[in-house]
Amino acid sequence: MHFNFQNIKSPTLVLNKEIVLRNIKRMNEKARQSQVTFRPHFKTHQSAEIGAWFREFGVSKITVSSLAMAEYFAKSGWQDITLAFPVNVREIDRINRLAEIIQLNLLVENEEAIRFLDQHLRTPVALFIKVDTGLNRTGIWWKNHESIVKLVSILQSSQKLHFSGFLTHAGHSYDGQSTEAIKEIYAETLIRLQAAKSELQKQLKVACVLSVGDTPGCSIIDNFEGVDEIRPGNFVFYDVMQLNLGACTQDDIAIALACPVVAKHPSRQQIVVHGGAVHLSRESLASNNEASHFGLVVHFSEETGWGKIIDETYVRSLSQEHGIIQAGKQLFNQTKIGDLLGILPVHSCLTANLMGEYFCSGGHTIKML
Amino acid sequence: MHFNFQNIKSPTLVLNKEIVLRNIKRMNEKARQSQVTFRPHFKTHQSAEIGAWFREFGVSKITVSSLAMAEYFAKSGWQDITLAFPVNVREIDRINRLAEIIQLNLLVENEEAIRFLDQHLRTPVALFIKVDTGLNRTGIWWKNHESIVKLVSILQSSQKLHFSGFLTHAGHSYDGQSTEAIKEIYAETLIRLQAAKSELQKQLKVACVLSVGDTPGCSIIDNFEGVDEIRPGNFVFYDVMQLNLGACTQDDIAIALACPVVAKHPSRQQIVVHGGAVHLSRESLASNNEASHFGLVVHFSEETGWGKIIDETYVRSLSQEHGIIQAGKQLFNQTKIGDLLGILPVHSCLTANLMGEYFCSGGHTIKML
Repeated sequence: MHFNFQNIKSPTLVLNKEIVLRNIKRMNEKARQSQVTFRPHFKTHQSAEIGAWFREFGVSKITVSSLAMAEYFAKSGWQDITLAFPVNVREIDRINRLAEIIQLNLLVENEEAIRFLDQHLRTPVALFIKVDTGLNRTGIWWKNHESIVKLVSILQSSQKLHFSGFLTHAGHSYDGQSTEAIKEIYAETLIRLQAAKSELQKQLKVACVLSVGDTPGCSIIDNFEGVDEIRPGNFVFYDVMQLNLGACTQDDIAIALACPVVAKHPSRQQIVVHGGAVHLSRESLASNNEASHFGLVVHFSEETGWGKIIDETYVRSLSQEHGIIQAGKQLFNQTKIGDLLGILPVHSCLTANLMGEYFCSGGHTIKML
Repeated sequence: MHFNFQNIKSPTLVLNKEIVLRNIKRMNEKARQSQVTFRPHFKTHQSAEIGAWFREFGVSKITVSSLAMAEYFAKSGWQDITLAFPVNVREIDRINRLAEIIQLNLLVENEEAIRFLDQHLRTPVALFIKVDTGLNRTGIWWKNHESIVKLVSILQSSQKLHFSGFLTHAGHSYDGQSTEAIKEIYAETLIRLQAAKSELQKQLKVACVLSVGDTPGCSIIDNFEGVDEIRPGNFVFYDVMQLNLGACTQDDIAIALACPVVAKHPSRQQIVVHGGAVHLSRESLASNNEASHFGLVVHFSEETGWGKIIDETYVRSLSQEHGIIQAGKQLFNQTKIGDLLGILPVHSCLTANLMGEYFCSGGHTIKML
């Protein structure tokens, strides 16, 4: 592994492939040991090339969060894609074209969308019902058995719509204050999903796959017995948010934004870099009861990518293009105008989405959607 | 004007050209009346086509915040560009190429960058010194006369570096709690810049342009007497942040994100749309001492673009692709799955940067960098 940081002139997203492969391998093995389908969410990396790395571990089914991503990955050969976002009926023409060429699994949570699909779909698709197990974002509340049974009945009477099962996203795990709290959320999710399935099967004779997916839960839990499928996404890169949750160690974080140093302000012990909200996103994190921050800082190394998180140092504020690093004394003193500093992002999905490509060892650039 | 919203299937940034032209005209006239140079900041729209609209008002000088933008606008014919970001010395090769073909004005605030430029520039450039008048982001503190005089002296002794003047960004106007507070910040900025110039000219015989630029200040102030140049950017579109500051009215906001409705949750009176952090950015705004929000909601109209901000309604939360709208009762009841709702962004610069193109009346699409 050799990173040629001399070639980096402006904000650049650096990716450590070894870490990515380790992250994929770890999650893949956990899924295999629990005998559940590993259907990773590709919204985090949005890259055909990184997608291909998953294939080498035997992954053949994936999750995406937009039709554009589904089309992109279908083009690069993925044949079984779940679009884990409530169906947008305005996109019916593109849905029809895609359903003709791959196994497309869609998500519904209301009767209007189901009736619309039944009327306008040309090719059969599989449908998951989104079940809300506590996040309160989308989905039918797990206890609302009447609504769930009603939707499944409509699906059963349709020629084109095949009911697959229940899909949930326990994203409230991101509010978990400890790994114990995240484990409890996972356990509760499982109980709720299974209860919903049991109630459904009391009334209708139907198979029902259970699909779960948040990265904190999937990282902290080792045994996925009781569900059929896991859909984590962020784990491929992790980030400072996951680190704070205890879902990863700092050695698992696989991307860092390379930022040129453009100014130093001794009176405030601040370093100004080119690297702002259009690179990192404005996702922030409150840390140790202190002010929120926008990322943590590392030194690059040509051999290993980057080192440990630098003490007493964080990205204090972001403008469109500026990042203001509140620096520890040692970092401040040794940093020079024109140096590169690395920023571990708070939220790798949003940072990757903004940057649009990855800089790898050997000078290779990986493209994205 | 006719907007064909039927053609919008997925999240799309809608632009009302009439509003943009009115915003440009108003700012241009104010600059003309005050006899100051109008050097608009193009980081907000990042579009050659929108840039061309400024030309029709006689604008020939512009501001950008990255070298990539400077190169893009140089390609579309802009011959006098200020890169209002502290020089990134790692980009010297591209700076050299650009300086050969346009009048390039750079920004410096430390001796290291100046010495580097003096050594490595092939073509003369004009340099502004960044002066900090209160934002405490970058720049030399206005009272630090000794440092300022020292930098200007170095510039004077260089063959390649021409000192232009002082540039400041009074971005702390965004923290102004009232238009009066913003006026006070503007007045203070002016006093501080003029004091710095006066101290400089006591010691060195040198001309010194004064350049200011924040949109709140430039929108609320009518008379720019005392400075030489204004560089507002956001005013071209405005947004909910500027509305909250009193820098614009809601009729001045020129872009709205069109979002398909994918779910409704009666128990929480929430509408779920396709339109999330990858479209709007995660910029949020605390409003009326309530929880922060991520945008306000409008109805589209084929004739006028969109109507007034809908009462008791706001974007409550964002995921990567989801937007959760907390809806007033009437909006909730009349909205159907598959409808389009418009979201006025909190920060138009970041939203435009994420969306990458604009949908205009007549079905025309405007491209960006």
